[in-house]
Amino acid sequence: MGQPDLLALEEWSDVDVDRLLSLATRVKRGEVTRGLEGKVLALLMAQRDSRAEAIATTAMYLHGGHATVLDLSEDGAALEAGIGVRMDGSAREHAKDLARSLGRWADGIAIRVLPRERDWSLAREDSLVKCFADEVDKPVLNLGSIRRNPVQALADAMTLRERLGDPQGKRFVLTWSWDPDPLPPAIPTSAALVAARLGMEIVISRPEGFELDPQDTARIRKIAQHAGGEFVHISEDPDDGLVGADVVYVASWGSVKLYGRPEEAEVRDQYRDWRLTPPRHRGTRGGKAVVMHRLPVRRNVAIDDEILDGAESALVDQQENVLHAHRAVLLELLGR
Amino acid sequence: MGQPDLLALEEWSDVDVDRLLSLATRVKRGEVTRGLEGKVLALLMAQRDSRAEAIATTAMYLHGGHATVLDLSEDGAALEAGIGVRMDGSAREHAKDLARSLGRWADGIAIRVLPRERDWSLAREDSLVKCFADEVDKPVLNLGSIRRNPVQALADAMTLRERLGDPQGKRFVLTWSWDPDPLPPAIPTSAALVAARLGMEIVISRPEGFELDPQDTARIRKIAQHAGGEFVHISEDPDDGLVGADVVYVASWGSVKLYGRPEEAEVRDQYRDWRLTPPRHRGTRGGKAVVMHRLPVRRNVAIDDEILDGAESALVDQQENVLHAHRAVLLELLGR
Amino acid sequence: MGQPDLLALEEWSDVDVDRLLSLATRVKRGEVTRGLEGKVLALLMAQRDSRAEAIATTAMYLHGGHATVLDLSEDGAALEAGIGVRMDGSAREHAKDLARSLGRWADGIAIRVLPRERDWSLAREDSLVKCFADEVDKPVLNLGSIRRNPVQALADAMTLRERLGDPQGKRFVLTWSWDPDPLPPAIPTSAALVAARLGMEIVISRPEGFELDPQDTARIRKIAQHAGGEFVHISEDPDDGLVGADVVYVASWGSVKLYGRPEEAEVRDQYRDWRLTPPRHRGTRGGKAVVMHRLPVRRNVAIDDEILDGAESALVDQQENVLHAHRAVLLELLGR
Repeated sequence: MGQPDLLALEEWSDVDVDRLLSLATRVKRGEVTRGLEGKVLALLMAQRDSRAEAIATTAMYLHGGHATVLDLSEDGAALEAGIGVRMDGSAREHAKDLARSLGRWADGIAIRVLPRERDWSLAREDSLVKCFADEVDKPVLNLGSIRRNPVQALADAMTLRERLGDPQGKRFVLTWSWDPDPLPPAIPTSAALVAARLGMEIVISRPEGFELDPQDTARIRKIAQHAGGEFVHISEDPDDGLVGADVVYVASWGSVKLYGRPEEAEVRDQYRDWRLTPPRHRGTRGGKAVVMHRLPVRRNVAIDDEILDGAESALVDQQENVLHAHRAVLLELLGR
Repeated sequence: MGQPDLLALEEWSDVDVDRLLSLATRVKRGEVTRGLEGKVLALLMAQRDSRAEAIATTAMYLHGGHATVLDLSEDGAALEAGIGVRMDGSAREHAKDLARSLGRWADGIAIRVLPRERDWSLAREDSLVKCFADEVDKPVLNLGSIRRNPVQALADAMTLRERLGDPQGKRFVLTWSWDPDPLPPAIPTSAALVAARLGMEIVISRPEGFELDPQDTARIRKIAQHAGGEFVHISEDPDDGLVGADVVYVASWGSVKLYGRPEEAEVRDQYRDWRLTPPRHRGTRGGKAVVMHRLPVRRNVAIDDEILDGAESALVDQQENVLHAHRAVLLELLGR
Repeated sequence: MGQPDLLALEEWSDVDVDRLLSLATRVKRGEVTRGLEGKVLALLMAQRDSRAEAIATTAMYLHGGHATVLDLSEDGAALEAGIGVRMDGSAREHAKDLARSLGRWADGIAIRVLPRERDWSLAREDSLVKCFADEVDKPVLNLGSIRRNPVQALADAMTLRERLGDPQGKRFVLTWSWDPDPLPPAIPTSAALVAARLGMEIVISRPEGFELDPQDTARIRKIAQHAGGEFVHISEDPDDGLVGADVVYVASWGSVKLYGRPEEAEVRDQYRDWRLTPPRHRGTRGGKAVVMHRLPVRRNVAIDDEILDGAESALVDQQENVLHAHRAVLLELLGR
């Protein structure tokens, strides 16, 4: 494999991603149980997330390895990433020093960190993740930045294949939902990118003002076209957007236009009715589109109970597949 | 074994509990060292408790397994347990979704969670624990709810047998003590229930207003009678209550009558002199009753130094036995 | 080995320390990979420090063992260490009860705890660490108290040997630096003690008011003389102090004279220009002294970028060696 790091799935070749997906499937079937004996993964968390930590430590354990958390939210553990800065403020450590020293004793580094910049044009650079990837000479895995989440994307790809057989040419609708406290667009962007790569027809359905990052939308279109799928179609109507969907991927995300601005909540609150209801679901292909959403899900806010408890809901599959995708990625990055 | 879950020890048959106790004793002797290879325990903690986590992770490790914590006190990790709720508040996840997804990758779930209800008649239902047990198709272990703590009860039963030989017919006095911040009655209730099951004569000594839950008292009486012990005798005098005790089990607990009400502290503070002093201890059988109390203990508030540092103190044994009881339970629930 | 505990490196004999250093070197070369199978280390943390925890859990893992954290900063986990105290305040547990119960299930205890006393003459006694060492009959490792850090000292000794060959007779300059939030003197004191033991010539360079503990300075002098090195020379000028250094060990520490007093910050702030700059570094032996400082380092506050990114910087080596020194200590204390 050319790349030692996994920061975004689209940086890996089709051959490499296919190998990862096939490894993840073998892992899920219980066919691969070792491979990380004596290996140590350092898990850098900008904010504690015990679910992500549990999945990562379990993934390492199941192959004989060990994961350990470095909590960057601890008092005094804030990182500086600027060049030439006189560090007399709250940050006691420079990212490059941490990266260099971790590289001495960890076999790989997984990092979940959101930028502190309050301006999308800066935040979108994910500079802290890139600083780590540059400074450390061990594999770096992006476990969730502001723009990408490659492990979740792999898990979503596994789920799409499990539910649809060959997803080629089928319609993938990414649809926005209201949330009192929305996340960055990493999950939906990564899902649309991987669906495009599988050759699906991509539709994005969201209110005005909730566009994804324009460069990312362009990339989704380009990848879809390259994979023989359809270019991105945008809808601003939650009903129309869902028509003919084979898969509905529901996600909430904040506005990149209004990123970090107080009026965002006000604009967003106009769209509280954007949620997947049974009538909307009946508008999908045969009324039976597969429903996806990364757990946790706000019931009856993002998706209604009836759908979540029905046969079309793939949310629990997605969550399970995160573990298997994670195991495959760690085997690929850290295994011999 | 019929039950896949362990929520309360009295739900298990005498045969099953005897087998657990005998397994715990063999574990303690170092006769069982494997049995959980490749197994993962998810530890759901409503509030961090590093001691409980340390014991559980060590128990898994000592048999080749792995435990991982899900911290429900994290920002955004609060669980909803209601049915049909529109989840637009602080809870971002429904307990049933968490239960279903955990069931996919964990081999068992241990849960320590206290109810949020401020009314004993609701709180006593332990609905969150039951929701997990209902929704997840893997073994569920109650690691401490508002009313039960089966692992501590097993450890207490081990300790009673180690100290008394056959506890049948001996007098077990559960006696209340003052505490500035008392716990729910799970520990003392579970201890009295298991002592009853061992055929002991049960006395409960506590101030007026500090009754245990009435249904639990009735259950203690019924189990004691069934096991050939004596029905529960209640004393409201700390001196009288201790007379003739073979075992004194000291515990502080809050009033279930005044549960969640501000006047509880005021009532409780009248009884600051309820503590096990050397003169009171001399009133027990031969002045040599075994003294029990779950660690941690407030020295010279619950029990005086002289007793805690003496030969009759079994507190450190109890604490050690929690590890062995935990190992036995995990082997039984998760082992092949 | 006579001592079961490691509280301060100088309590161990030269032979024992040499054996530890040689074991640490073999560990670093990958020659020792097992030795702690089935062993459990309890890590008592007065304050969470995920880096220290990551190193300790990794050290145990790499030899087949398990480390588990007890978080003393948790609500209700504060420890009492006084004798005969009526514990009706915030501390719910006495250190001796915790020590006794840990001794039943852990094979060793590593403790990182700072005293709560606001008076140096009391704080310097490290009474909580000593209480543990007295009460528990398993090995106790001091992972960082107010006055000593033996694992860091071993790592520093490894680094000195790696960089200098035989350090005997070479000049070790410990030099103070300004920090907005300085640490206790454990790290620099331990470093100077171990450099003295290696037979180095010791110079301490610091502003007036920032003396180390006088008994510790006397001990550094005595050990240096005994090891054939030079007695301690003190400089109050950051330029003069560095002249002729083979090693510059930069550290910030608070005043023991003004310990816990509000005026300390005011006095300290007069000395913001005490930092290792390229001109100062050029004043060392050949302008090429090895530069040491425990990570994290405040760039351009303690040491300038140009030095930190240069060939003489040994900071990343020190940090790596902490892991290997830790492994050697655990093998020595807990291994068969």
